[in-house]
Amino acid sequence: MTAIDAFDIVFFGGTGDLALRKLLPALYHQDQDGNLPSQGRVICLGRSPSDTAAYVEKAHTKAKEYLGSHYNESDWNKFAARIEYLKVDANTEEDFVALAETLNKFPTRERVFYLSTAPDFFAPIAKNLAAQGLNEGHSRVVLEKPLGHDLDSSNKINDEVGEYFNEQQIYRIDHYLGKEPVLNLIALRFANTLLEPLWRREWIRDVQITVTEQVGVETRADFYDKTGALRDMVQNHLLQLLTIVAMEPPASIDADAVRDEKLKVLRALKPLTTDDVKTKVVRGQYRAGAVGGKPVIGYQDEPGVPAGSKAETFVALKAEIETWRWAGVPFFLRTGKRLGDRLAQIVINFREVPTSTFGKNTRPNRLVIELQPDESVRLYMMAKEPGKDRLREVYLDLDFKEAFSTRSPEAYERLLMDVIKGDLSLFVRRDEQRAAWRWVEPIIESWENSSEGPKTYTAGTWGPAASSALLSRDGLCWHEEA
Amino acid sequence: MTAIDAFDIVFFGGTGDLALRKLLPALYHQDQDGNLPSQGRVICLGRSPSDTAAYVEKAHTKAKEYLGSHYNESDWNKFAARIEYLKVDANTEEDFVALAETLNKFPTRERVFYLSTAPDFFAPIAKNLAAQGLNEGHSRVVLEKPLGHDLDSSNKINDEVGEYFNEQQIYRIDHYLGKEPVLNLIALRFANTLLEPLWRREWIRDVQITVTEQVGVETRADFYDKTGALRDMVQNHLLQLLTIVAMEPPASIDADAVRDEKLKVLRALKPLTTDDVKTKVVRGQYRAGAVGGKPVIGYQDEPGVPAGSKAETFVALKAEIETWRWAGVPFFLRTGKRLGDRLAQIVINFREVPTSTFGKNTRPNRLVIELQPDESVRLYMMAKEPGKDRLREVYLDLDFKEAFSTRSPEAYERLLMDVIKGDLSLFVRRDEQRAAWRWVEPIIESWENSSEGPKTYTAGTWGPAASSALLSRDGLCWHEEA
Repeated sequence: MTAIDAFDIVFFGGTGDLALRKLLPALYHQDQDGNLPSQGRVICLGRSPSDTAAYVEKAHTKAKEYLGSHYNESDWNKFAARIEYLKVDANTEEDFVALAETLNKFPTRERVFYLSTAPDFFAPIAKNLAAQGLNEGHSRVVLEKPLGHDLDSSNKINDEVGEYFNEQQIYRIDHYLGKEPVLNLIALRFANTLLEPLWRREWIRDVQITVTEQVGVETRADFYDKTGALRDMVQNHLLQLLTIVAMEPPASIDADAVRDEKLKVLRALKPLTTDDVKTKVVRGQYRAGAVGGKPVIGYQDEPGVPAGSKAETFVALKAEIETWRWAGVPFFLRTGKRLGDRLAQIVINFREVPTSTFGKNTRPNRLVIELQPDESVRLYMMAKEPGKDRLREVYLDLDFKEAFSTRSPEAYERLLMDVIKGDLSLFVRRDEQRAAWRWVEPIIESWENSSEGPKTYTAGTWGPAASSALLSRDGLCWHEEA
Repeated sequence: MTAIDAFDIVFFGGTGDLALRKLLPALYHQDQDGNLPSQGRVICLGRSPSDTAAYVEKAHTKAKEYLGSHYNESDWNKFAARIEYLKVDANTEEDFVALAETLNKFPTRERVFYLSTAPDFFAPIAKNLAAQGLNEGHSRVVLEKPLGHDLDSSNKINDEVGEYFNEQQIYRIDHYLGKEPVLNLIALRFANTLLEPLWRREWIRDVQITVTEQVGVETRADFYDKTGALRDMVQNHLLQLLTIVAMEPPASIDADAVRDEKLKVLRALKPLTTDDVKTKVVRGQYRAGAVGGKPVIGYQDEPGVPAGSKAETFVALKAEIETWRWAGVPFFLRTGKRLGDRLAQIVINFREVPTSTFGKNTRPNRLVIELQPDESVRLYMMAKEPGKDRLREVYLDLDFKEAFSTRSPEAYERLLMDVIKGDLSLFVRRDEQRAAWRWVEPIIESWENSSEGPKTYTAGTWGPAASSALLSRDGLCWHEEA
């Protein structure tokens, strides 16, 4: 790890779920592993008056629960000594005076402002930080999703924050990009001769990116019904994963070199016409069913969902990338709630052998990058059974878990450390976000102008039948059905 | 396994080391695994008068020793019931009358004559078998090496045997071709999309085939001094392994389809001129040294070695294949006695990544097929260490030993079963043998006409320094030095 300068990290939304369950435990882990410099404060902000002791106690309870066997009392106490709580309301200018006072005790430290709040607060926070001079060069802001509702609202947020922070200071976080298998995929592609020559239309038949949940809309109907799966998952996470798979080799590890390549992929996505949306995009909404053996209600009956809601809780689509490398290779994306399993995976299906000289039972090779529930990278190949003349499919663990006995860190650990170090590589640049919105907009528009609603699917299944049909038209099927 | 018809297998040289240590145990294993039909005799021949009981007792002692934990008394007794001993002298016609009588008790059975004798006996055996009508369609002969001393003597043996048996009946055995990792290599190449596109000059930098021994000439100086490592190992085993690596995909698994491809490789070997022999072929002879910590004498002092012998106990050479697939890719072959280790391996070195964007410590990928002392197929790749930004080299077990818990059979098991089944794929065709001799002949001639002898090397090392220099001229080094 690069040596890290003394820093202060400030969590807006410090009493929220993300801070307590993910961000503080992530920093605890990094502290435990000795990766944090001794000079580093964690300043947690909330809207309610409280004191540091009370906040730390609350954080402690949550951390214990979340860290499980990684929790260690003396490590926690050492880490907790970094924590300070401050009452800061995003819209209350005076609160920022107090924040500035706290921060200015150490005026030269790296400063990270992590905006784990609703996006409505991003503009006032940015403005109020700037008013205190907290937006100078060694300050960074981290923006959590959702970053807008569509291209316009996203532009608005970015303009507002951009008024006070320049693009090099803005870290749009997408935690899928911090997951170890994704990082390993990049390493595998570009540090080995073996994969890159095959990483193209000549040898890859299709790519499937799936992020599914078993949970329903839970208590978030108010937000979710206005958002839907396309905005909540496809526009950001799934398209970002697609760029990692599809990008050309960057010329360097420089953040903008990498993000230039990702941007090129997003810009090369074949635009969808209204007709395309009908044939290449499937939207669904769950009805009552059973998940994990337990009966669950349908989306329309969830508390807070307006009658006759057309919000999609499922999206499957076929994307195409118009480049020399990828033309003709379908990228199938799929996400949804109340599906058969909780799963996040990227599947690279290689083409079949042109002729199966040795045995008819060959299955095409495939690389499966699993991000959830377990993390793994597996290459499925055919091998000969010893002593037999038959082939069998077996897989290779490309994550080399056995070779590396070290703990695999959580995505937020990696990403928080990157922010502290000032490495933007794994964060989404404004133009990437814009290109992603631009590509999904025709889908949103087409749906809004359509008299049809989403197709329903029974909770606990894999979405509407149209999702399978989308692939079978190309003679393919989703990985778990293979 | 294909169902096998009733058979009789006849071992000429039945009292010899190969029959007792390898061939009978191989059949025992296959019997134990239930692969032999109940109707199948094993008729062992020797020149001395003995009876079956005495022979079986001798075989029993050897088998027990050789089989180790695989020995099981009741399995052995079941197998041993197949064994019959007959006194047959290759040059004594009457002995073949008795043999014919024994065989003709079951006139329709598949018949295998395994000639595990000196090649001088091949012609009289073939003739005497034919005299008894034992060369008809369902008879096969297996020829063990050495099959001649040069192109002429090899032609002579093949002509003589060919007078009585047609090419489809002749099984020239090379046990390296029956080893599981070699068979798996073929399966891996042609049953997966992933390897074949990379299996060419664009992605492979060099190939290294090494078969080394720790033992010296032992009691075989009389034979070995006239033979040398080139004839004993390179012309057959090493060139055969080279053909397996380098052949084009055969159109079918038909034996001749496979052997046509192997032949094409041998014919595409770039012929060596006298000058080439000086620069591309290294011969060595061991002098006193230490192997495995024990002092050993030099070749010149071995009992039976004539004074001033120029026999080579070591050969290293650079072969080139003039095809679109392989032009410019050196194939380095190396074999010898009294070397640092007992080792048989094929190493495919892939090219370096064109630019190492992610970390400077990438090593080129390589595929290592180990045949001895252990059997394995390993792919070395670079992966990212979890939680770190550094790469590390790790390997993948492509033999999938964990996936396949079955016992990995010995090469002779596979090859004997192939003979019984009538599958010639893994046996050397006459034209292959001829092409191999033709390619090594200029080396033999050049050495015979040279006033220089072999370079000496200390026993227990990896051969003469010239062997390393051969590779370093191409900027490369042998695998174990890498």
